[in-house]
Amino acid sequence: MTIDKQTIEQAHERIKPYIHRTPVLTSQSINEATGCHVFLKCENFQKVGAFKARGAMNAALSLLPEQRARGIATHSSGNHAQALARAAKILGVKSYIVMPRTAPEIKKRGVRDYGGEIFECEPTLQARESTLAEVILKTGATEIHPFNNYEVITGQATAAKELFADVKDLDVIMAPVGGGGLLSGTALAANYFSPNTKVIAGEPAGSDDAYRSLKSGKIEQAQSQTIADGLLTTLGDKTFPIIQELVSEIITVSDEQIIAAMKLVWERVKIIIEPSCAVPLAALIKEKDRFKGKRVGIILSGGNVDLVKVLTLMTSQK
Amino acid sequence: MTIDKQTIEQAHERIKPYIHRTPVLTSQSINEATGCHVFLKCENFQKVGAFKARGAMNAALSLLPEQRARGIATHSSGNHAQALARAAKILGVKSYIVMPRTAPEIKKRGVRDYGGEIFECEPTLQARESTLAEVILKTGATEIHPFNNYEVITGQATAAKELFADVKDLDVIMAPVGGGGLLSGTALAANYFSPNTKVIAGEPAGSDDAYRSLKSGKIEQAQSQTIADGLLTTLGDKTFPIIQELVSEIITVSDEQIIAAMKLVWERVKIIIEPSCAVPLAALIKEKDRFKGKRVGIILSGGNVDLVKVLTLMTSQK
Repeated sequence: MTIDKQTIEQAHERIKPYIHRTPVLTSQSINEATGCHVFLKCENFQKVGAFKARGAMNAALSLLPEQRARGIATHSSGNHAQALARAAKILGVKSYIVMPRTAPEIKKRGVRDYGGEIFECEPTLQARESTLAEVILKTGATEIHPFNNYEVITGQATAAKELFADVKDLDVIMAPVGGGGLLSGTALAANYFSPNTKVIAGEPAGSDDAYRSLKSGKIEQAQSQTIADGLLTTLGDKTFPIIQELVSEIITVSDEQIIAAMKLVWERVKIIIEPSCAVPLAALIKEKDRFKGKRVGIILSGGNVDLVKVLTLMTSQK
Repeated sequence: MTIDKQTIEQAHERIKPYIHRTPVLTSQSINEATGCHVFLKCENFQKVGAFKARGAMNAALSLLPEQRARGIATHSSGNHAQALARAAKILGVKSYIVMPRTAPEIKKRGVRDYGGEIFECEPTLQARESTLAEVILKTGATEIHPFNNYEVITGQATAAKELFADVKDLDVIMAPVGGGGLLSGTALAANYFSPNTKVIAGEPAGSDDAYRSLKSGKIEQAQSQTIADGLLTTLGDKTFPIIQELVSEIITVSDEQIIAAMKLVWERVKIIIEPSCAVPLAALIKEKDRFKGKRVGIILSGGNVDLVKVLTLMTSQK
């Protein structure tokens, strides 16, 4: 394994001054709905509202001084964009963020508020990659990929590391899977800090590429038929091998199940989570007969939502 | 003062096994929006989703065994109804809740889930009171009023007591005011546990009876022109004198200001609060020039919302 225990411990020390140690919440209602003892690791309360603050900060802090001075860059329309702009601001360097021109204005403002420079492009992966390549050529900035980057994966691992320190004897730890940065980090943390804990992911059925990848043994392409818009990406060549080795199972869930789980958390735990974040809980509820009485940790990945969109989702269900 | 320091301390010990010690959250975004150091006492995470669990539990536990055995009763369409039904369930006695027939089904279900017996009546104060009188006559149950009851007030005081224990040197403590149970309890707690802290209330301008009562020196009647539906009640003869003696100021806010403050908390703190709960923060934002740099504690009173209704409110504003 390229990332060892000490690497994660060092990353944790490195980023600690810049991130929240997020709380772990429990809820009688969630325990009743699942038949388990559930421990919610609240990364929705993390800086920038998502675990992405960890990986971006660790990657930025790991650069050589001469790299750092030339700035950092990425293409992202989501939480990683803000996390990277924030990391750059803290370090006093420039950040260059390539975003599709269709990205919501609130996301762009979030990046600008941290002093990030935005380069708009057409909303295709090809346009994003070619625009990023141009920006890097021009600026000499270093790319920090949202998930297919060992320092990012190591940073994301610190969320589960904290959960294992706070809650002993977890039978299962769950995370959502998109590109696999959080999931591979979570699996590494379990491997080193809680080896008896099984690692299980939740994935939207409408973009079940990780599920299919584990079956076929090679990286399958993502579809994009889900409201869990943080999980539309395909696994990377750095995340997939870790997931293949250390993740026990991926459970897929429908959008209806995702919305129901999200609503349950909003109404009963009184905290805001985004649709992608509700996926592991939806998976646990779907398969609850198999997990009866288990101690289950869930990484609540983020809480950045467009309220108008969520209203539409919640009212479209009975 | 009828409620002394020891009374509050004893109440706190009495109810501790049955309530959450709720967390205190801070948020850089809220500090920036107010220009203050704000400490949010999260009673939205309390049992039944509101501070009402404290007062109801204290009042129920304070009854004589022979009273308790005949059950407890109230009229309420809100959080107190659930809090009372829950207290009765914990004590293994009956609860009788008079509710207007127009109360939302979810509120009725909340009461029934705790084993409470519901008596429906017409949606007028007169019908509620006469129905409650009949129920009490028939059952011999003891009425526990939502706010005009010393044991209830004492129970509500424990929220501020906990905040003063967790956060030292608060310049100001804020709570919303409806019937005045939470506000009078908060004021008593400040008086005994943090006498240098000023007590300030927020009240909806569309139901500003407490504001007018402080001006006129007598209890004025509430109107009901506000979306803060937990704050439509008029002060009681037990709450008003305490408020008159110990509360420095009441600041009124418009519904637009309430919705903006609620939205700020949802989006930036990532927690669910109900409209009534956002009133003190709205008041602080309105008058922020006067409070610059102060250490301000805010009791976040509750998080029970009709999600669709509240999302509609928030998204209909720009």
